[in-house]
Amino acid sequence: MPVEKRTPLPVGNAIERIVNEDIQSETIEVSLNESLNYILAEDIVATHDIPRFNKSPYDGFALRSVDTLNASGDNRVEFNVIDHIGAGDVSKKVVGEQEAVRIMTGAAVPEGADAVVMLEQTVEGDQSFTIRKPFNRNENISFKGEETQQGDLILEKGQHINAGTIAVLATFGYTEIPVFKRPSVAIIATGSELLDVEDELEPGKIRNSNGPMVAALCKKLDLPCSTYKIQQDDLESSIQRVTEALKQHDIVITTGGVSVGDFDYLPQIYEALDANVLFNKVAMRPGSVTTVAVAQGKYLFGLSGNPSACFTGFELFVKPAVLSMMGAHKRFPQVVQATLMDNFKKANPFMRFVRAQATFDGKQMTVKPAGFNKSSAVVAIAHSNCIMVLPGGSRGHQQGYTVDVILTESQTYEWDAFV
Amino acid sequence: MPVEKRTPLPVGNAIERIVNEDIQSETIEVSLNESLNYILAEDIVATHDIPRFNKSPYDGFALRSVDTLNASGDNRVEFNVIDHIGAGDVSKKVVGEQEAVRIMTGAAVPEGADAVVMLEQTVEGDQSFTIRKPFNRNENISFKGEETQQGDLILEKGQHINAGTIAVLATFGYTEIPVFKRPSVAIIATGSELLDVEDELEPGKIRNSNGPMVAALCKKLDLPCSTYKIQQDDLESSIQRVTEALKQHDIVITTGGVSVGDFDYLPQIYEALDANVLFNKVAMRPGSVTTVAVAQGKYLFGLSGNPSACFTGFELFVKPAVLSMMGAHKRFPQVVQATLMDNFKKANPFMRFVRAQATFDGKQMTVKPAGFNKSSAVVAIAHSNCIMVLPGGSRGHQQGYTVDVILTESQTYEWDAFV
Repeated sequence: MPVEKRTPLPVGNAIERIVNEDIQSETIEVSLNESLNYILAEDIVATHDIPRFNKSPYDGFALRSVDTLNASGDNRVEFNVIDHIGAGDVSKKVVGEQEAVRIMTGAAVPEGADAVVMLEQTVEGDQSFTIRKPFNRNENISFKGEETQQGDLILEKGQHINAGTIAVLATFGYTEIPVFKRPSVAIIATGSELLDVEDELEPGKIRNSNGPMVAALCKKLDLPCSTYKIQQDDLESSIQRVTEALKQHDIVITTGGVSVGDFDYLPQIYEALDANVLFNKVAMRPGSVTTVAVAQGKYLFGLSGNPSACFTGFELFVKPAVLSMMGAHKRFPQVVQATLMDNFKKANPFMRFVRAQATFDGKQMTVKPAGFNKSSAVVAIAHSNCIMVLPGGSRGHQQGYTVDVILTESQTYEWDAFV
Repeated sequence: MPVEKRTPLPVGNAIERIVNEDIQSETIEVSLNESLNYILAEDIVATHDIPRFNKSPYDGFALRSVDTLNASGDNRVEFNVIDHIGAGDVSKKVVGEQEAVRIMTGAAVPEGADAVVMLEQTVEGDQSFTIRKPFNRNENISFKGEETQQGDLILEKGQHINAGTIAVLATFGYTEIPVFKRPSVAIIATGSELLDVEDELEPGKIRNSNGPMVAALCKKLDLPCSTYKIQQDDLESSIQRVTEALKQHDIVITTGGVSVGDFDYLPQIYEALDANVLFNKVAMRPGSVTTVAVAQGKYLFGLSGNPSACFTGFELFVKPAVLSMMGAHKRFPQVVQATLMDNFKKANPFMRFVRAQATFDGKQMTVKPAGFNKSSAVVAIAHSNCIMVLPGGSRGHQQGYTVDVILTESQTYEWDAFV
């Protein structure tokens, strides 16, 4: 069999082809406390103003500003406290001349009052207090509707539900949240050289690290996933396995078997499934043989069997597909810029993605490789918090250059100094 | 009762006081596939070399480089294929003069051979192939131990377990992973003005948004947490509730009740518990009245009842405490720099933290407020992916200034353009 010729596609175009498939998850409802990290499937409007009433931002006294005009250090002005309301209470009194109502943070400003004096600005007596300066009309009042008004569009369909989104939904009384279902993922590591993690080593074999790694990457996105038994290099059973996985899941990720070797069955599997291959070669290192196909309205990701390539393929191709299925507006990885702290003298025709460590040193963001970085490397992935992007076609990259960096880790874990 | 005077502590010192308490979670073992986002409790060493044997990084033919020396376009050199091994197989043959073994990516290089020719560099015949260029000794061979050698320290105690860490642990056959237990969290929203999310609104009252928000922030860190019933402003039952929560959890987070008002019972609760108050005033806006205490070897966080202050308090103070308890080396938030896209003309004696949106526009990182940004604001939190840090004591901050930014969201959800 002649070696198949494949045309490499630029990375950006490859990602574009994936999201352009526009495969959409169905809309479901989840309870508010389960909604974290879903994507909103509907616009959300404010069911009332925030604040709902003129309220006090401080603990203090509500009074009429006109009664404070003559207050000074030499001429303290006294007020009678006619009521005392806790948070959530509403005063039934109307504030008159030289009168005040003791009021808590967040409480409604009572009728008649048009300013709030902070507790710290008073000297308290028995049922009274004095102040030493005048207050303006509307001073220390949070006005009804100043943040949001009833009917305002406050959250948008396609928005990621973070902790703040949950606070907003709670504020407006939303208990069941319309979201896009999370796609379920089948993970199939292929290769007769693979052993399970608990297996004793055998000559020529290695343990399957891609399966657990891809499962962890799915878990980071809260995706339900099933890890299948390691698939031996056998065409018939491979077709059967992938067919079965495709029936039960929305996405099938295989690792290994994507190259041009005699035991790389992915191309034949895609053919058997009548899959539409979006691409089978990308102008990148590592992972140039990454293959993505669509069959029965579902994605098939053929990631490399090399761990570093597999990891990079997931970050670059699987994540945008998942976010796209889940209806997210923002589907692409965060890119920041950093100063390169190492030399890459070898020119590379293809864009190169390097597992790396980005550090903010208080003055600038710097980045360096996270260790031994061949396509087959595994340890450097564990020590990386980002992927460095080195454009292809250049004469190499030198220390001091500014390079793009894709952040892959929740950064809060990654640093050891602050403020 | 006179108003209590409190001395504000700089934010950095406040964080320092928290982590200096050095409260440590116990060590447990979890299965590999449950270990994501834990912190390693022991150093991990390589149980074997990677690669374990000299291996081929490509599909191709293993041969003796000495036999290729005279190859050229005009003088193709032919090799006899004496064996054909799949991945995981080991050839029992020894490669002799003008002989080769067909070999797959990742397979062991057979005895006698010292170079690998890629499939794409050959013209195949029947049981033979020709090449048109010489190959060097060791060309296309990944050497035993070139990435890692047996006994090498590959993962460190205190390291965050990410997907790459899991791949490394799988590679070396670790099925049970020593980690620090995740602290469990009790969440108590306090305030008689609070209603549950499903409640109908009443005059003067608002729905409890801090409880669900803090639960979501805990969930982001995979912390087990219990949300208690809304606590009314009543001292006796408040003491009882917090005491009970402290018995059953490693961390108690209350929201509200931390100020100096008549119904702010936190100070009295801490006294009743004989708690050591680390600080009760921080030189920051919002959230200056944030209080952190330690009792019975457990943290008590008194966060503000204002949503923006509550959120900021969790990010700044609770997270480092949690990561510290879990034994993480890196405990502090990721800071990056961005160009300010708005004016903040008002000087502020305190450091100011603003819920904000950071965007990488392909050239630089920019940042702007995420919306209406008072301490009581809630909608802006949902639209933020970071907290902008504006140092205190300045004359205000102008558009174009470079400011520090604390990233709060997994950035992969937040952007809409790549490559």
